[in-house]
Amino acid sequence: MTNEAARTSVILIGGGRMGTLIAKTLEAEGGFEVLDTYGSRDAAQLDREAPRADVAIDFSNRAALPHALAYVRRTGAALVSGTTGYAPEELEQIRALGEACAVTWSANYSLGVAVLRRATEVVARGLGDWDCEIVETHHNQKADAPSGTAKLLLGAVDPAGSMEVVCGREGMVGPRGRREVGMHSLRGGTVAGTHEVHFFGTDEEVCLTHRATSRQIFASGAVAAARRIVGREPGFYTFDQLMFGE
Amino acid sequence: MTNEAARTSVILIGGGRMGTLIAKTLEAEGGFEVLDTYGSRDAAQLDREAPRADVAIDFSNRAALPHALAYVRRTGAALVSGTTGYAPEELEQIRALGEACAVTWSANYSLGVAVLRRATEVVARGLGDWDCEIVETHHNQKADAPSGTAKLLLGAVDPAGSMEVVCGREGMVGPRGRREVGMHSLRGGTVAGTHEVHFFGTDEEVCLTHRATSRQIFASGAVAAARRIVGREPGFYTFDQLMFGE
Amino acid sequence: MTNEAARTSVILIGGGRMGTLIAKTLEAEGGFEVLDTYGSRDAAQLDREAPRADVAIDFSNRAALPHALAYVRRTGAALVSGTTGYAPEELEQIRALGEACAVTWSANYSLGVAVLRRATEVVARGLGDWDCEIVETHHNQKADAPSGTAKLLLGAVDPAGSMEVVCGREGMVGPRGRREVGMHSLRGGTVAGTHEVHFFGTDEEVCLTHRATSRQIFASGAVAAARRIVGREPGFYTFDQLMFGE
Amino acid sequence: MTNEAARTSVILIGGGRMGTLIAKTLEAEGGFEVLDTYGSRDAAQLDREAPRADVAIDFSNRAALPHALAYVRRTGAALVSGTTGYAPEELEQIRALGEACAVTWSANYSLGVAVLRRATEVVARGLGDWDCEIVETHHNQKADAPSGTAKLLLGAVDPAGSMEVVCGREGMVGPRGRREVGMHSLRGGTVAGTHEVHFFGTDEEVCLTHRATSRQIFASGAVAAARRIVGREPGFYTFDQLMFGE
Repeated sequence: MTNEAARTSVILIGGGRMGTLIAKTLEAEGGFEVLDTYGSRDAAQLDREAPRADVAIDFSNRAALPHALAYVRRTGAALVSGTTGYAPEELEQIRALGEACAVTWSANYSLGVAVLRRATEVVARGLGDWDCEIVETHHNQKADAPSGTAKLLLGAVDPAGSMEVVCGREGMVGPRGRREVGMHSLRGGTVAGTHEVHFFGTDEEVCLTHRATSRQIFASGAVAAARRIVGREPGFYTFDQLMFGE
Repeated sequence: MTNEAARTSVILIGGGRMGTLIAKTLEAEGGFEVLDTYGSRDAAQLDREAPRADVAIDFSNRAALPHALAYVRRTGAALVSGTTGYAPEELEQIRALGEACAVTWSANYSLGVAVLRRATEVVARGLGDWDCEIVETHHNQKADAPSGTAKLLLGAVDPAGSMEVVCGREGMVGPRGRREVGMHSLRGGTVAGTHEVHFFGTDEEVCLTHRATSRQIFASGAVAAARRIVGREPGFYTFDQLMFGE
Repeated sequence: MTNEAARTSVILIGGGRMGTLIAKTLEAEGGFEVLDTYGSRDAAQLDREAPRADVAIDFSNRAALPHALAYVRRTGAALVSGTTGYAPEELEQIRALGEACAVTWSANYSLGVAVLRRATEVVARGLGDWDCEIVETHHNQKADAPSGTAKLLLGAVDPAGSMEVVCGREGMVGPRGRREVGMHSLRGGTVAGTHEVHFFGTDEEVCLTHRATSRQIFASGAVAAARRIVGREPGFYTFDQLMFGE
Repeated sequence: MTNEAARTSVILIGGGRMGTLIAKTLEAEGGFEVLDTYGSRDAAQLDREAPRADVAIDFSNRAALPHALAYVRRTGAALVSGTTGYAPEELEQIRALGEACAVTWSANYSLGVAVLRRATEVVARGLGDWDCEIVETHHNQKADAPSGTAKLLLGAVDPAGSMEVVCGREGMVGPRGRREVGMHSLRGGTVAGTHEVHFFGTDEEVCLTHRATSRQIFASGAVAAARRIVGREPGFYTFDQLMFGE
């Protein structure tokens, strides 16, 4: 059904759980041709033999970054990166690559979270003087708190970063501060990830919720990003911009 | 604290439960002077003796409409109307009055619902192919279903009105239609009003919720609308436009 | 409709917000005759002039306790107490009064919370190895955390008091402990009180929620307790026992 | 770790999605030995060659029933059945087998649902005059409504079957009936199954929720039932009885 000539060529960097899931998703959705896959440890091979592709999808690790950047710069491929754990200066290098190529990076390629973030901005602007509390729930093996996605939503509630973030209220005395945002981390079972942003006013409340039930959504989102970044002008794009335009 | 000269003058039309609540709210918030109050049955008096005011706030009934319209047209006051039960041609008359004066009408002056509507539009645009279901809960004495606010949210989900609205699935056979919106009306206890808009995708969902716990929010919203409509150019404004601008 | 002879006679101790609400509730429900009301500061008058009643309802303060206890002991009335802020030894005195009279005390006379507590015990026994997290939400003026009702529900989750209560997880490293219970306090707007008890297992979760929208429920519960304690054998009864029997 | 001699021997009837999942679960949990597996179409082989086992686990179809029943009756194995789609007289045959062997059948082997059912009974008894509404959500391919689990929970709310079940309220006029139970079926995305039982009183509400995120929970529950039924006296046991005793 898909014209061979119209298929988008891909190289995958990162052969772990997310890389495997992305490979399956590319195949299931169709319209893609995976030219090659480089495990996180084999990224140095990108420097020599890697074929030119329309887009590189990178879910690997920090160590692979120099090779991925060099590949993209040399071939002019677009870059979709979901690798995390970078230092700020490494993120800056990815961002700077946007001067030469079309680049996107996100800690969360879920379409629902991207939309929830947009909706949270709308609500926060409209209800600026309401009290806001963020609640995130993850499985009992998650090793950090609060979640990166909760921080991303906090950025939508408080773009200026001027509010006080309160992560526990045990033994508090006296009323809540006006410029507080509560952050609450529930841990239990095998929950893939639930995020709630609550806004409380006088006699009414608004709540925005996102619930993920598998990692598949992150793979699907990265593939959607790949589909949309190919053919764009050089630049650094957020996932949100790719999915919903300017 | 408020300069006498700067106070906004108001006439109230409708002396019922909402009218009384609005009078209290105007006083509590300050900056308003209520020149006179006309019960729903006394609206004819508006034709003769009513003083000129900056804004008329109308929570009365259909019968009062001709008097309210004539008053506004004659004096050039702004109009904030929350009266419901109008026929379409009556709503059209209110809208047409916007050619001469600054006018707003809404079935729901809750700030939270106005914001939720905006957020719902954002989510529906972003997740256009997800399945949507609306759930509303009200006290057990409510005499109609679905609620007006649920219909307002449906308008945000499906602005073109092209989807099929499904209000019960008992005995259904076969999968859900792609272009359905489910509408579910829970009735129980004394619930002032809860509205949920659910969007379901593959392995993730987004839900937007508004919860009201008293009628006070509707009075506060109408007073906020009055504050913002005074001094505007003639025109018909939605509550949303008044609160959040263009 | 009610036979005069069958009416339950009451004296009220405490004339504050809850006392006033209870007086209204007794009248609205019918079947009660309030013989007299003693403000928290006038409790000493109980020692002299107070008429004999079927039941004393006490929503006053610590200072009134000696007078209330003496009155009940002297007249043999039943006691329904919702006064809080007692020291442990004062609670012990109330409990000891059960040797002579029918006595109940609770920090929360909401019927829904009493039932939720029972249901929580059932779930906690059935799902003993699931992870449990308690979330409570109250208005932004509440001066302490976690709420008394959250502690009451914690008692249902962990009757032996052997689990570690965790009230904030900021900066946590590593997985959740097996014997933890999370307690999360959200504060915002005018919320009268919402309590959620979450149980998380492998690929499934159970959540029990109670939502209060006014203080009326506490008055209604105290009146229901009064109705049920009159005529009982001397003893200390929990609110739960009165409402749901052995 | 497990003594070979102490392992529970199993035969599996039904090789479909659930059968495969149960086989994996038996292996993962340990303490079981699967002697043989019979596909739904091969059930006739049970009549001849099937070895004696401690327990037969049947997730097959109607056609296999006579062979399964004969096998159990002949060998005295216990039976754990999760096959659905039976006619009432077939269910009666399974129940009658309890006279000879230890037998359990359930449409839902989720531990969470079993506990939620117990908790629902507790709440319904305590809040008998509150309004109850049940909401169930499943993926958009589910072909029937309401779900079997919603009906199971309805049985806990209304054991006498005396209430009117209302599945849609479009165009309703007038207040809710006192003896109604609302049943609402949401359909969307890939939701594995969410069930909410709401109870609404005056100014308060109680809600019990179960959320499943995979089919694994049904396999785990069936294996837990197998573990507990082996060695029991002949009789028909509910899943609830096996898990929580008398």
